[in-house]
Amino acid sequence: MRRPALAVALNDYLTSRSYLAGFSPSQVDQKAFKLLHRPPDPRHVHALRWYRHIAALQQDLVPDGSMKGKRVQPPWSPPAGTDVPQLRLYNSLTRTKKTLSKNYIKIRNRSTTSDKKRHEAVATDEDHSVARGQRKGTKSRGTAVDRQVYDASHMGHARSYISFDILRRTLRDYFKYDVLYCMNITDIDDKIIKRARQNYLLDQYKEKKPQAAQILQDVLSAREPFQAHLVSTTDPDKKQMLERLDAAVTAALQPLQAAMEGEAAAEVVQPLSQVLLENSKDLLSDWLDKQFGSQVTENSIFSILPKYWEGEYHKDMEALNVLPPDVLTRVSEYVPEIVEFVEKVVSNGYGYESNGSVYFDTSKFDTSPQHSYAKLVPEAVGDQKALQEGEGDLSISADRLSEKKSPNDFALWKASKPGEPSWDSPWGKGRPGWHIECSAMAGSILGESMDIHGGGFDLRFPHHDNELAQSEAFFENDYWVRYFLHTGHLTIAGCKMSKSLKNFITIKDALAKNTARQLRLAFLMHSWKDTLDYSSNTMESAVQYEKFMSEFFLNVKDILRAPTDITGRFEKWEAAEMELNNSFYDRKAAVHEALCDNIDTRTVMDEMRVLIGHSNSYIASRKSAKMKPNRMLVESIAVYLTNMMKASQHQRTHTHTKQSSDLTSSGPIEESVYIGFPVRGQSDNIDLESTVMPYLTVLSEFREGVRNIAREQKVMQLLQLCDVVRDDTLPELGVRLEDHEGLPTVVKLVDKETLLKEREEKKQMEEEKKRKKEEAARKKQEQEMAKLAKMKVAPSQMFLTETDKYSKFDETGFPTHDMEGKELSKGQAKKLRKLYEAQEKLHNEFLQMNLNGN
Amino acid sequence: MRRPALAVALNDYLTSRSYLAGFSPSQVDQKAFKLLHRPPDPRHVHALRWYRHIAALQQDLVPDGSMKGKRVQPPWSPPAGTDVPQLRLYNSLTRTKKTLSKNYIKIRNRSTTSDKKRHEAVATDEDHSVARGQRKGTKSRGTAVDRQVYDASHMGHARSYISFDILRRTLRDYFKYDVLYCMNITDIDDKIIKRARQNYLLDQYKEKKPQAAQILQDVLSAREPFQAHLVSTTDPDKKQMLERLDAAVTAALQPLQAAMEGEAAAEVVQPLSQVLLENSKDLLSDWLDKQFGSQVTENSIFSILPKYWEGEYHKDMEALNVLPPDVLTRVSEYVPEIVEFVEKVVSNGYGYESNGSVYFDTSKFDTSPQHSYAKLVPEAVGDQKALQEGEGDLSISADRLSEKKSPNDFALWKASKPGEPSWDSPWGKGRPGWHIECSAMAGSILGESMDIHGGGFDLRFPHHDNELAQSEAFFENDYWVRYFLHTGHLTIAGCKMSKSLKNFITIKDALAKNTARQLRLAFLMHSWKDTLDYSSNTMESAVQYEKFMSEFFLNVKDILRAPTDITGRFEKWEAAEMELNNSFYDRKAAVHEALCDNIDTRTVMDEMRVLIGHSNSYIASRKSAKMKPNRMLVESIAVYLTNMMKASQHQRTHTHTKQSSDLTSSGPIEESVYIGFPVRGQSDNIDLESTVMPYLTVLSEFREGVRNIAREQKVMQLLQLCDVVRDDTLPELGVRLEDHEGLPTVVKLVDKETLLKEREEKKQMEEEKKRKKEEAARKKQEQEMAKLAKMKVAPSQMFLTETDKYSKFDETGFPTHDMEGKELSKGQAKKLRKLYEAQEKLHNEFLQMNLNGN
Repeated sequence: MRRPALAVALNDYLTSRSYLAGFSPSQVDQKAFKLLHRPPDPRHVHALRWYRHIAALQQDLVPDGSMKGKRVQPPWSPPAGTDVPQLRLYNSLTRTKKTLSKNYIKIRNRSTTSDKKRHEAVATDEDHSVARGQRKGTKSRGTAVDRQVYDASHMGHARSYISFDILRRTLRDYFKYDVLYCMNITDIDDKIIKRARQNYLLDQYKEKKPQAAQILQDVLSAREPFQAHLVSTTDPDKKQMLERLDAAVTAALQPLQAAMEGEAAAEVVQPLSQVLLENSKDLLSDWLDKQFGSQVTENSIFSILPKYWEGEYHKDMEALNVLPPDVLTRVSEYVPEIVEFVEKVVSNGYGYESNGSVYFDTSKFDTSPQHSYAKLVPEAVGDQKALQEGEGDLSISADRLSEKKSPNDFALWKASKPGEPSWDSPWGKGRPGWHIECSAMAGSILGESMDIHGGGFDLRFPHHDNELAQSEAFFENDYWVRYFLHTGHLTIAGCKMSKSLKNFITIKDALAKNTARQLRLAFLMHSWKDTLDYSSNTMESAVQYEKFMSEFFLNVKDILRAPTDITGRFEKWEAAEMELNNSFYDRKAAVHEALCDNIDTRTVMDEMRVLIGHSNSYIASRKSAKMKPNRMLVESIAVYLTNMMKASQHQRTHTHTKQSSDLTSSGPIEESVYIGFPVRGQSDNIDLESTVMPYLTVLSEFREGVRNIAREQKVMQLLQLCDVVRDDTLPELGVRLEDHEGLPTVVKLVDKETLLKEREEKKQMEEEKKRKKEEAARKKQEQEMAKLAKMKVAPSQMFLTETDKYSKFDETGFPTHDMEGKELSKGQAKKLRKLYEAQEKLHNEFLQMNLNGN
Repeated sequence: MRRPALAVALNDYLTSRSYLAGFSPSQVDQKAFKLLHRPPDPRHVHALRWYRHIAALQQDLVPDGSMKGKRVQPPWSPPAGTDVPQLRLYNSLTRTKKTLSKNYIKIRNRSTTSDKKRHEAVATDEDHSVARGQRKGTKSRGTAVDRQVYDASHMGHARSYISFDILRRTLRDYFKYDVLYCMNITDIDDKIIKRARQNYLLDQYKEKKPQAAQILQDVLSAREPFQAHLVSTTDPDKKQMLERLDAAVTAALQPLQAAMEGEAAAEVVQPLSQVLLENSKDLLSDWLDKQFGSQVTENSIFSILPKYWEGEYHKDMEALNVLPPDVLTRVSEYVPEIVEFVEKVVSNGYGYESNGSVYFDTSKFDTSPQHSYAKLVPEAVGDQKALQEGEGDLSISADRLSEKKSPNDFALWKASKPGEPSWDSPWGKGRPGWHIECSAMAGSILGESMDIHGGGFDLRFPHHDNELAQSEAFFENDYWVRYFLHTGHLTIAGCKMSKSLKNFITIKDALAKNTARQLRLAFLMHSWKDTLDYSSNTMESAVQYEKFMSEFFLNVKDILRAPTDITGRFEKWEAAEMELNNSFYDRKAAVHEALCDNIDTRTVMDEMRVLIGHSNSYIASRKSAKMKPNRMLVESIAVYLTNMMKASQHQRTHTHTKQSSDLTSSGPIEESVYIGFPVRGQSDNIDLESTVMPYLTVLSEFREGVRNIAREQKVMQLLQLCDVVRDDTLPELGVRLEDHEGLPTVVKLVDKETLLKEREEKKQMEEEKKRKKEEAARKKQEQEMAKLAKMKVAPSQMFLTETDKYSKFDETGFPTHDMEGKELSKGQAKKLRKLYEAQEKLHNEFLQMNLNGN
């Protein structure tokens, strides 16, 4: 039986032996009892453990009770320990840092129960490439809502993406957790529906090529509700943006109106009307949607937009070296699961149907003894503005709101109105509510609980709180998420990023100024939880850091390149090496402590800088003393630093990245061999596979094209050429082509020796086959030759030579008397006659053949 | 203040809440008290923790005492844990598996004390490349002592080297320990001294070019003591070897003696004498050493031999992909430290000087209350044979043995006799004893305690026990080594490896048959602690395993190469994917459990095989259903397996390895970027040309073959295909094909942008050319049309319309008078006649054309 954890723990900290030395066992027991009633104190913990240790020794190791018996091994104790820090993460569910102990969260353990939770699951909500970004914007930059989602991802998004990528890599590569990283793409949502419809209606409007007068009239019509909205807007940021928009419309209106009043020529009027159309497209599309939105019925209209922006999002992530998720779920692919999910919430008593929609009963949930509503931001319960933003633009009409039992309730399932996509459900045609998506995904992929849920700070309420409520209502538990991590804000040179401040920076903008590695370094130099200021100062620090580190690597490489003999690379460690090595280990300990402290990369970067500084001093002092620095030691330090940088930013070189390598040329520290054994003899060209595969693909596809044509047109010579390439030429280069009938040819890089051996075996088999065939042909020919020889013989000649059998013949050469002069019997003659006639027939055939020239 | 470990531990296992529910606090205290007096039981441990948890909640989290206050965050509990296995290693000091908990052994913590032990220190004693191998041999194959050390390292050595390399990499790369790996090279030792002297004396003897008679006489003299030794030898293995040697001498003696008696010519005698010299060199060098050994005084003679064999050792290690140590110490570099060490042992009362040597007082040490002698093999105390083998050939003369207080004592410092290297010491000229080396190194590099000491099973007594004793005498502690790990034996096809069995296999022999990776796989497929049988079966299993894994990697790469769009690589997980993923995590858990269980790589290999099997089934079932396997999932599995293989065998690509790459071409899974950032843009093209050109040449030649056949057989479709490859496909990859009529196609690697620009320009030029050609054709046609129009006109009509020139015409339409009624002059008429006749000719042509149907 495995020793239980407490016994192990009690043995752990065995250092001093004096504490309990003077006491009797019962005194020790008394002391141990008292310890339980005191606040924890390392000294007491220690004593308790020592006590247990003695007991264990007495029971197990020294059966005869003697502590120092000879001829048996003496008692053993594990090494003295110190308080090694454990990873603690700032958990929004407690607003404190909580230990993320490997003991329970690293689910490499074998589960013998039916427990579905098998691995550390990280779900991220940073799926605002499509719609979630809107929500984030809703909260942090209320004005920017409508536009933001249709723009490219910006640095505000990058704040979350890169931060979670750092957290994920650190958990996986440094702390060695098994991380299953799931991500959700919201591709069904009020905002998307509305914008998709608006884009579609505006495009239709433009396709009709309206005349200038028509445009003018429509813009004037559309402007009325817009200006009413402007007047009623109170948020200063939003108001400012609307005013700017209004000013742009006005600026385009005036020249057009003037030109039309002056009855200017069409060549003058038409361009002016196009400017107006361009400047007014936001209010026009809104106006069009209000009129015709409900007539849009084609479901595909609603999927084109999110699919495009999802693609753009992936491209940005690749450019930033953000790892792709292990599992990506799209709401549109999970509608049946969502319907089931909502059904269960209703049957558990926490949801109710109303007018074809289903709502979550927050008060029922909150009064349940085992649940709490709004665990993340309990203070926000009742914040109607936030709640309505969470519900979505299309879902807060008065009739909708009146369907709810309480204004705090939120939609799980929304009855689809005309002009909205819809799916079948027990409550009629409808579509999923916003918060439901992560919950359904988690149920499907991660089971009843995940370890970490990530997201932007702004999403805490209502989105994450509603997610928590509905999921815990579904699973009837209170631990759907164990650790909720929220990343901090991003400011631009000290200011809030906002459309009205004109300081909106897309990821592509940022990558035009700095490499992905520099951006990553800037993020690493700040805490993921705090506000990060993106500014020229910030980036300059990152660039300097990169340079400092780079210079160190170059120096170390130079030291390692100095020639030496095989034993000379191991040099004796003197005081200077011991000192540097001690500093090295102090820095590693400090780095570990910092990473444990809520993954404090900022301190890590500082400590690494100190380590480089110490190493530089050591190298300089050795050089000034005309001595070589110790190779193994500086190498170890450089390797450690390289690995630390890898853990935070190395690239997953999957196929797709290679295809769009123009976006990923920013060069992080990569591990180049990604899968499998490298091909033999190519130690310098480690990345052989990804390097040569594009060329081999061209070759393979060209060859397939040739084969297809050659078959159609029956050009055997070409087919042979294709076989030679496969069987002779490419194996020499360690390439195996596998032709599969009707499927694309498979290209494999294989060890050359293996391939040549395979070819040799194939050749031998073919030779054997050929030999057998030739043998058969030879036999057949011999038989034919024998037959031919027999055919040549005329029947009149066939018996004449058989003088050992017959003594007389008639004029046709037919035997009449046997050897002994006796006349043949009728039976004998009959038998011979048959043979004679058969030969006659055969011989006639022969004569016929000769006549025919054969 | 950081929360102490017990409180953290108490919180860890919070799953069931019912156990203590009904009890009052004092009852709980009582229960907790009782728990301490019982054998550990998970249920009780759990209860204790739950008790502490409630207390903590009451004190810290809910100050007002209410467990469910609204508007504040509810209580939080960490995830439920299971018994995650911890690493346990088989410790020779206890002969059981002992937990190597990260809590105490991973010294990444910051030490604020002056404690020197800063990191996990692994010292290995596998330094028998030079002298330690002797010792190992001494114990396991007594007869083979003398020769073995001068041969190359053999598979018996590899058993330890590779096993410890696996352990080290697993601790470092899988368990993420900070490992400082120290290794000792014994380059001062009785065996080395003797063999170095013998080599030197034999070389000197040969240099004198002795005559045949002299050689004969010397061999006969040397043979006398040799044969006496042979007679007295009882060990059958050793006796057999000596007899074989004697037979070889006899075989060479007889022809020489016969030739010399027959007074044969020098040309006959001399070669025979050389054969004798060669066959007798062992006994001759022994004989020379006995006579002249004490006159060898040059210290450098004693360093050449170990330096050479150390170099050979490193080469073998590189060939096996065994990582170099972090610190390598040589006894010869640590003599002053050793002297200090011995002084301290003496001053601590555990050593005594005797006749210029210093001995360890085993009985004084053993009777000390805090020490135990022979902790590893207490049963062996008093085994004089083992002890004397430990002391060394030059140190067991009767006078030496009589210097000791007890036969169990062993030398710390040996007074040097004439013909031995020597260093100054407080006890006169001398040299270190054998066991002292590791101890002095550890004092210098690792401090008073190391975590792991490795070595071959045979070295446990007396070597490792003496090391322990003297080190603990020096440090006055009892924990110099915490974990003593001893690797198992190696047999050859079931038999003990031995000279007399002629089954001695060097590392180079083994590498000629199998790659380093295959050898490594074979080792991974067996427990490091048990006997490993090196046989064709063992290696065949490894080769098969490699093939199985390799094929899987190739298939996954093929799947990942299938084209997809940017969003298409994320596919929905259905039941089959969930099932495979669950199996994946079960296998990972099983692998983790196996590695924790004394690094049981055998089970790991089995589990990985099962994982590949499951993956293959999944892939096959998807393919047979005409569906694509899930890319991200199979990629994750392949990456996991690759990383596991890396952790056990990847190569440290330091500078030296690069230099001697002929030995390291066996291709493990490597990380190619070893230090620093890759240079931008270089990573993909580092040697692109030489890497991809062989493949492009195949493509180009194949294409030429296709073109030639296509031309001969006039298959236009193929020629077009060839053009597409040249003009469209390859430029996208930065490849320019240049077709030259009658010459081989030229292949050039060119910047992609340049090529696309070239293609664009070529296209424009072709369009320009086409345009001009069309223009010319148009003009030509116009001219022809004009000509045709002119031809249509009959000569009789041609002047009639020119009424502005002529007023009268004759009956043929020929003008007779000009505008003004004046008759035309003869000259004028002549000119017009010419025109008339020319038109007549032209028109006749036209009529002819019409007649011909044009």
